[in-house]
Amino acid sequence: MSNKVTQAVETGAPESVAESVARFQAVRRQTERLAAPLSAEDQTVQSMPDASPTKWHLAHTTWFFETFVLGPHAPGYRAFDPAFEYLFNSYYEAVGPRHPRPQRGLLSRPGVEEIMAYRRHVTDAMTDLLGRGAANVADLVKLGLHHEQQHQELILMDAKHMLSLNPLRPAYRAAPPQAVTSEAPPLAWSAFEGGLTEVGHDGQGFAFDNEGPRHRVWLDPFALASRPTSCAEYLAFIEDGGYRRPEFWLSAGWDCVTQRGWEAPLYWEMKDGRWHVFTLSGLRALQPSEPVCHVSAYEAAAFAKWAGKRLPREAEWEKGAAALQGTSEVWEWTASPYVAYPGYREPPGAIGEYNGKFMANQMVLRGGCSATPVDHIRTTYRNFFPPDARWMFGGIRLAEDLR
Amino acid sequence: MSNKVTQAVETGAPESVAESVARFQAVRRQTERLAAPLSAEDQTVQSMPDASPTKWHLAHTTWFFETFVLGPHAPGYRAFDPAFEYLFNSYYEAVGPRHPRPQRGLLSRPGVEEIMAYRRHVTDAMTDLLGRGAANVADLVKLGLHHEQQHQELILMDAKHMLSLNPLRPAYRAAPPQAVTSEAPPLAWSAFEGGLTEVGHDGQGFAFDNEGPRHRVWLDPFALASRPTSCAEYLAFIEDGGYRRPEFWLSAGWDCVTQRGWEAPLYWEMKDGRWHVFTLSGLRALQPSEPVCHVSAYEAAAFAKWAGKRLPREAEWEKGAAALQGTSEVWEWTASPYVAYPGYREPPGAIGEYNGKFMANQMVLRGGCSATPVDHIRTTYRNFFPPDARWMFGGIRLAEDLR
Amino acid sequence: MSNKVTQAVETGAPESVAESVARFQAVRRQTERLAAPLSAEDQTVQSMPDASPTKWHLAHTTWFFETFVLGPHAPGYRAFDPAFEYLFNSYYEAVGPRHPRPQRGLLSRPGVEEIMAYRRHVTDAMTDLLGRGAANVADLVKLGLHHEQQHQELILMDAKHMLSLNPLRPAYRAAPPQAVTSEAPPLAWSAFEGGLTEVGHDGQGFAFDNEGPRHRVWLDPFALASRPTSCAEYLAFIEDGGYRRPEFWLSAGWDCVTQRGWEAPLYWEMKDGRWHVFTLSGLRALQPSEPVCHVSAYEAAAFAKWAGKRLPREAEWEKGAAALQGTSEVWEWTASPYVAYPGYREPPGAIGEYNGKFMANQMVLRGGCSATPVDHIRTTYRNFFPPDARWMFGGIRLAEDLR
Amino acid sequence: MSNKVTQAVETGAPESVAESVARFQAVRRQTERLAAPLSAEDQTVQSMPDASPTKWHLAHTTWFFETFVLGPHAPGYRAFDPAFEYLFNSYYEAVGPRHPRPQRGLLSRPGVEEIMAYRRHVTDAMTDLLGRGAANVADLVKLGLHHEQQHQELILMDAKHMLSLNPLRPAYRAAPPQAVTSEAPPLAWSAFEGGLTEVGHDGQGFAFDNEGPRHRVWLDPFALASRPTSCAEYLAFIEDGGYRRPEFWLSAGWDCVTQRGWEAPLYWEMKDGRWHVFTLSGLRALQPSEPVCHVSAYEAAAFAKWAGKRLPREAEWEKGAAALQGTSEVWEWTASPYVAYPGYREPPGAIGEYNGKFMANQMVLRGGCSATPVDHIRTTYRNFFPPDARWMFGGIRLAEDLR
Repeated sequence: MSNKVTQAVETGAPESVAESVARFQAVRRQTERLAAPLSAEDQTVQSMPDASPTKWHLAHTTWFFETFVLGPHAPGYRAFDPAFEYLFNSYYEAVGPRHPRPQRGLLSRPGVEEIMAYRRHVTDAMTDLLGRGAANVADLVKLGLHHEQQHQELILMDAKHMLSLNPLRPAYRAAPPQAVTSEAPPLAWSAFEGGLTEVGHDGQGFAFDNEGPRHRVWLDPFALASRPTSCAEYLAFIEDGGYRRPEFWLSAGWDCVTQRGWEAPLYWEMKDGRWHVFTLSGLRALQPSEPVCHVSAYEAAAFAKWAGKRLPREAEWEKGAAALQGTSEVWEWTASPYVAYPGYREPPGAIGEYNGKFMANQMVLRGGCSATPVDHIRTTYRNFFPPDARWMFGGIRLAEDLR
Repeated sequence: MSNKVTQAVETGAPESVAESVARFQAVRRQTERLAAPLSAEDQTVQSMPDASPTKWHLAHTTWFFETFVLGPHAPGYRAFDPAFEYLFNSYYEAVGPRHPRPQRGLLSRPGVEEIMAYRRHVTDAMTDLLGRGAANVADLVKLGLHHEQQHQELILMDAKHMLSLNPLRPAYRAAPPQAVTSEAPPLAWSAFEGGLTEVGHDGQGFAFDNEGPRHRVWLDPFALASRPTSCAEYLAFIEDGGYRRPEFWLSAGWDCVTQRGWEAPLYWEMKDGRWHVFTLSGLRALQPSEPVCHVSAYEAAAFAKWAGKRLPREAEWEKGAAALQGTSEVWEWTASPYVAYPGYREPPGAIGEYNGKFMANQMVLRGGCSATPVDHIRTTYRNFFPPDARWMFGGIRLAEDLR
Repeated sequence: MSNKVTQAVETGAPESVAESVARFQAVRRQTERLAAPLSAEDQTVQSMPDASPTKWHLAHTTWFFETFVLGPHAPGYRAFDPAFEYLFNSYYEAVGPRHPRPQRGLLSRPGVEEIMAYRRHVTDAMTDLLGRGAANVADLVKLGLHHEQQHQELILMDAKHMLSLNPLRPAYRAAPPQAVTSEAPPLAWSAFEGGLTEVGHDGQGFAFDNEGPRHRVWLDPFALASRPTSCAEYLAFIEDGGYRRPEFWLSAGWDCVTQRGWEAPLYWEMKDGRWHVFTLSGLRALQPSEPVCHVSAYEAAAFAKWAGKRLPREAEWEKGAAALQGTSEVWEWTASPYVAYPGYREPPGAIGEYNGKFMANQMVLRGGCSATPVDHIRTTYRNFFPPDARWMFGGIRLAEDLR
Repeated sequence: MSNKVTQAVETGAPESVAESVARFQAVRRQTERLAAPLSAEDQTVQSMPDASPTKWHLAHTTWFFETFVLGPHAPGYRAFDPAFEYLFNSYYEAVGPRHPRPQRGLLSRPGVEEIMAYRRHVTDAMTDLLGRGAANVADLVKLGLHHEQQHQELILMDAKHMLSLNPLRPAYRAAPPQAVTSEAPPLAWSAFEGGLTEVGHDGQGFAFDNEGPRHRVWLDPFALASRPTSCAEYLAFIEDGGYRRPEFWLSAGWDCVTQRGWEAPLYWEMKDGRWHVFTLSGLRALQPSEPVCHVSAYEAAAFAKWAGKRLPREAEWEKGAAALQGTSEVWEWTASPYVAYPGYREPPGAIGEYNGKFMANQMVLRGGCSATPVDHIRTTYRNFFPPDARWMFGGIRLAEDLR
């Protein structure tokens, strides 16, 4: 992702019309750039109910602008195809019935070409609308762009999962030249005093509804690891029988281990006596120094318990964020279930279905990963997934109590 | 399908080398012609575990020649891609492990283009081999061509099912000009004396192993309907509460009715108060005069019971075949489970897995349908499907006892 | 089972009133004798949807007489509890809705004591009715008694299955003193000429509807083994890799092997390096000479194929029955799917749901077993179960073609 | 439960030997009193995987004392039956393998009588041990008694569920004489200032590990309803389309509504146009004034949203507890997922599996219900169930933000 896009989205300053058009087009173009290495066939397959076909992502992000911006706010706008309202609604009950999620992979039509035409149709209409000023939709457009950026990451997560199930082990892209680093930097600990503090978004600049309101919390003294857990460290857990010893696991996590046969993170695979990982560039040898990735919250918690530590609570993570070194390569599981902050209220209407209705049975991840658009990362950002999910880029940062 | 192909395959006379090459290429070409109207995305989707993606059919029929003919019999032949042996094996245990059937739709790669290259590679190598005479593989090639013809019909069955699940109701091809026939010809009955008779293939010309050996059976006097049951007749059954009255149904059939919510044949749908059917040319109004199609064996049996008749046993059907009028538009369910004829022996080796191992929990259908290559139809042909299957082109011909 | 019962039921001669009362009571008493070793808790448990709790069998056989005999034919009869019509209907659609089969084990009430009171209530009313002559219900009563005898065998099958799942391995009864026989008699073959012949019940004496009508069939020359396959013989199949070699199996059978982990007949278990079998008297060492039992039709067919033989067709079995030595210890799987004989018509009304509606996806077993009441065994008797069922007492008799 | 028991368990003062024996026996006797109205058959049935047969509860609570107290601490103690260690282990991985939970209902043996003998055997041995002082096991015994009290409530929950599935609608006990109260007291609100406060158990007297450590939390000003939500109030939600309007529901809750067909709380049933509830005394008319019960966390949250309020967080509930009127009739769902308090550490060994390992995908309920032993109720007590569970006695208390 180019720096230009990054800067354009991140600034809180008022934008000129030209800037807002440029920003809009840059995000749209980036989505298409991510889909480009995938064939029409690649873009059609749905590898599991939790994942979606690439072309569905291309269409759904377009549907968002058509449904929430163009339909209500662009006089005279004609829908590209009225059936798409049904086909590409993800979960908005208020918008009406929708195609069942597990059947997204049955839709050979519309094909990739038609979906690209749909994108052009909507991008053009949006460009037109934005070019006329359209201050009243500025917030909706910003939401739509952040929404599309979320799907940019989903495109990579879902494509990786789909390709991993193919015995041919196809690569999404060529392997980048890899810096040979035999070891991760030594693990250090940053201490934090805790006390009464404030967390959550303060309302300056864009944030999703679930990041606020800013509110007070009490924190006991704690420490955070200076970097995510490395594969070498996680391997020690595996080799110490981590996946065979129930004492480290939450009961629901142990059920996953035994029923799904977990023996290592997702995409790890033993070949010729050595661990390999499947990546977007195909299968390659595991690098001991790289952060462990594609672990569930259960694995993260079991590893932490084995290590005599714990996972950070999300308020701790947020307070520590300023001190954390480097940029995120992996999302970091917290010990916090995804619930509403005190005083949280869902926005009215269909847009209110964005975040609040998922506040059950999910855990918060913080940070961001190498697949996250840089300007989509915020200290207050609350990513969330069920604790058994592994196909997102989820890793581990340890915490401990200080007393 | 051109007459040329038909004649070429049907003749039992010895073929010249040129004829056998021409026949081979004609069948291969016909398969590709059937796939041509389908986009790359269409060819990738698997609509249910029982069905396969079009491109899988294109590859599997090719795999058959590569595995059973070229590999063992063409010196110096190089496999197009060694991984394809695993990917495109359907169910041949003797050939080795294989990609799980319900996951055929997860394979975005190889793409349609690569599979077409695979086809060309194998077609060329086969052409070469056949061009050199290769009398020793003549029987295997014939089997491979009949196998490919079976998959030609499957391509249409499976594509129809896949398209039917798409809310856009896409058509595979343009609708043919339709002769307006408001009524089917009146139903007549052909009487047969029965007695001790012989059925099964006599070994002259090609037949699948399961069609023989020819053997004696005793038949009591019976009669067969002069034509398949029409939609108008079936509609009378529906309107008389056929799908709500358990007294007409086998117990396992009634379970299907209640658990799957059957209310009419597959692809029938009520729209604006009138019955429509989804066809390869899209949705159109039901024609009362057309044969009812896409019924399960359970529905066929329930209809027959409601009508005070029964389904024919397969020996009756075969004896009556000579007298039956017209060509088949629908496969006709019989009352006969698919079992071995007396004296049947499976061929040795992997080829022996072709028919014999499926002789459990299936019912025989006889005849052929509009999707069956004309030269693939034989009076002794035994098609078979589980009694609850509806996506093949299965219809009804009534029978009754005479005394 | 006492000789007295046997004689009473078997005779085709007209019975006196006293005889018919005695016969009725004897069958009812025998059912209760079979349940007696089981505790109230034992009688309540349903081990799988296919099996029923003992007390359900006690009640359902009683329901049969109440619903089909007393209700319509005993003026002034008062139902014991009107709710029982719903609770203890097995599958008679014509009688009305019923308690779902898989939930029979959820019914702690009525308790065993109340069900025994229900039995007494109905037995008394029936005794009364029979004592008054009641010639018009003679056929229904006979059917009810044969129905109850079927359930006597089911009580033992189902109790055995339920006890087998208990890690305590409880016994239903003490082990009988066992004749030590180290080897089965040598296997001989009885040859039969075949030809045009008649099979099926001729209408003299009681038979279920599905045993007729008697009809002609053509049989090629064949031979039948002189005794059922022994455990020693079946063990040779196991030790030759029978459960690891797909070439012996029907495709659907091989699916069972791999998906359910079959490695031996049901109730076989390796302990301290030796095969044991769970029996109604608990776990004991396998006797090589005893007939192999608790195999599915798939295992029977695979064994036969491994042995270079086949299973008999039911007409062959019936023609050979006169020559077969000894009484049956195990039901014998045939190669014949359970379908209607030519000319078969279901009786009208609810009684017509007895046999005909199950004519799909089942295979015929012939003979009888040690749990079958002796006077319930007939040469024309057609027992039937799905080909994957193993909890009935099913064994193997080999056949072969002669030419 | 008698006052005597209540007092005995609740006091934190040092007990005499006689007192500790009396307390032990009183709790054990109470469990048996709760089982007494249930027949042997009732005590055997398992109505769903989440529930257990009564006799399993009787045995498991006994297993606890045998495994954790008598085995390690009573020299010369002989296990009643070594197989019971396997049969009656609930989920303690450290103790070893165990009988699968969903198969508890398959165990007809040991029967109720044998389990009562097991209870006597262990109660006698414990009485003996306690009579000798045995100060070293005092904490374990206390834990065992609180564990048994938890199962006393489970016995009632599970028996109610089991009886509710029986079409006969049997009652566990006679209906108590019912005070006719046509209306609940008017709903009032208690305001709380919030601020920095402490919650959690302070270590004085018995508490489960998960109730501590006591720790600081910040609370914004809030108010709590003066009483649980009544059936009349909940009915208004239903009648306003509560179960048909997705806007009130968490996404996972709405899935339950649509997939499980929820239309009212568990055990509510419309009969002759009026709502009834199934109770331990059978089916009776709904009382508008009684607290709504047997709702899931999803229903509680949806009701609160419909009412324009919210559920209390558990710290709010705990701070408000002193002010709450009356004793609890229903457990009250909170908005708090069940997670570890800051500084929480699981105890070492098998006992450590008691609470901590379930800290995933569950919500906290606070208070107690009419089935909870009075001396088992504590302000800091954290009950927990998955948000879709309804068979426990869960109700609703509303909260709201003050600002």
